[in-house]
Amino acid sequence: MFLLVMKIEIVENILKYNKDQAEKNRKIFSDNNILVINILSSPGAGKTSMIIETIKRLKDRVKIGVIEGDISSTYDAEKIKNYIDDVVQINTGGSCHLNSTMIMQAMEKLDIMILDIIFIENVGNLICPVGFDLGEDYKVVLSSVNEGDDKPVKYPPVFIKSDLILLNKLDLIKGSDFDLAFFEKKVSELNPAAPIIRFSCKTGDNLESWINWVLKKIKKK
Amino acid sequence: MFLLVMKIEIVENILKYNKDQAEKNRKIFSDNNILVINILSSPGAGKTSMIIETIKRLKDRVKIGVIEGDISSTYDAEKIKNYIDDVVQINTGGSCHLNSTMIMQAMEKLDIMILDIIFIENVGNLICPVGFDLGEDYKVVLSSVNEGDDKPVKYPPVFIKSDLILLNKLDLIKGSDFDLAFFEKKVSELNPAAPIIRFSCKTGDNLESWINWVLKKIKKK
Repeated sequence: MFLLVMKIEIVENILKYNKDQAEKNRKIFSDNNILVINILSSPGAGKTSMIIETIKRLKDRVKIGVIEGDISSTYDAEKIKNYIDDVVQINTGGSCHLNSTMIMQAMEKLDIMILDIIFIENVGNLICPVGFDLGEDYKVVLSSVNEGDDKPVKYPPVFIKSDLILLNKLDLIKGSDFDLAFFEKKVSELNPAAPIIRFSCKTGDNLESWINWVLKKIKKK
Repeated sequence: MFLLVMKIEIVENILKYNKDQAEKNRKIFSDNNILVINILSSPGAGKTSMIIETIKRLKDRVKIGVIEGDISSTYDAEKIKNYIDDVVQINTGGSCHLNSTMIMQAMEKLDIMILDIIFIENVGNLICPVGFDLGEDYKVVLSSVNEGDDKPVKYPPVFIKSDLILLNKLDLIKGSDFDLAFFEKKVSELNPAAPIIRFSCKTGDNLESWINWVLKKIKKK
């Protein structure tokens, strides 16, 4: 019993500490007029591909930075380095989500004075990252056709807490048993306010809807 | 500092408590000659489909039970109930993995005297379930082609700790950029002893290799 009580106190302390640091991050982002988007998904849903395709389409118009979160490796950061300079890799060392202190440390390595957007690619995980505010403006969940249409039913919190729902790999929907109407109905039940944008990073089909969403959110420097 | 020390102690206590209960589970499974397989994967890699296809092929020869782990919903358990009676759904209420106490509780609802196999479908997550022994005989990780060939690089622990590596959705490899040689090389570097079996649950292609692996592990009642 003693153990449990202690545990709860500590978890609350950690969450409060995370929230306090997130607010400090948010103020820095806001003071510098940077749009910050925290991207959540399962492993392999296509976060890195989406970020790269977004950079390709926007890098001549806006200055983009990326914070990459992984339990280990610099694999994704290296891919993104081919397109932009402002990339920081965070290795969580096993932890299943980023936290606001990690973001604060990453920020020190980014040229935040000049950035218009920071994409945070969270650790591939539909559960743990949801509860950790990083100081971002928007949480975005990226689902993908091949994961199946039941993800909103099985992982409700991430769909409830996200400001935008993205569905990737639309090129795989033909011949699959993915029921788009079911997926969108379940998402809308959980989160009626969040827009749903579906696209294929591979073919580029409807990616412009996501790009336009981002462009509309950019702050004046 | 005090906070950190307390935290570490408690985490150790939780893991020790989990391990103790896992050993009790293992003894019960062993005393009843039940083969227990703990299946880990990302959301949507096809754990439920694989279990269903396995049941279809084995249910006339062996008695199968399933423990379904999800943060919420009874969606997967309902699907499996169409094929067998011994299905228990565990809702973790947000937790990103099953633990050995949950399995102990689930066991009470299964007819363990008659079962030959229990498949445990862990919560869809490549990170958190790895550290929690449930008392199983084997940990199996199910990766899938559409998640990309870099999963061993980005999520090493689950590949290191698994006794068998499965690769699903082989029907999607044609026209994709999934590099099978790269995937298998990376897996072998992490875990040279673990066999790799690739198949497609959808087409049934090479599923018999997995079925044969299971059949070889079944214990004499």
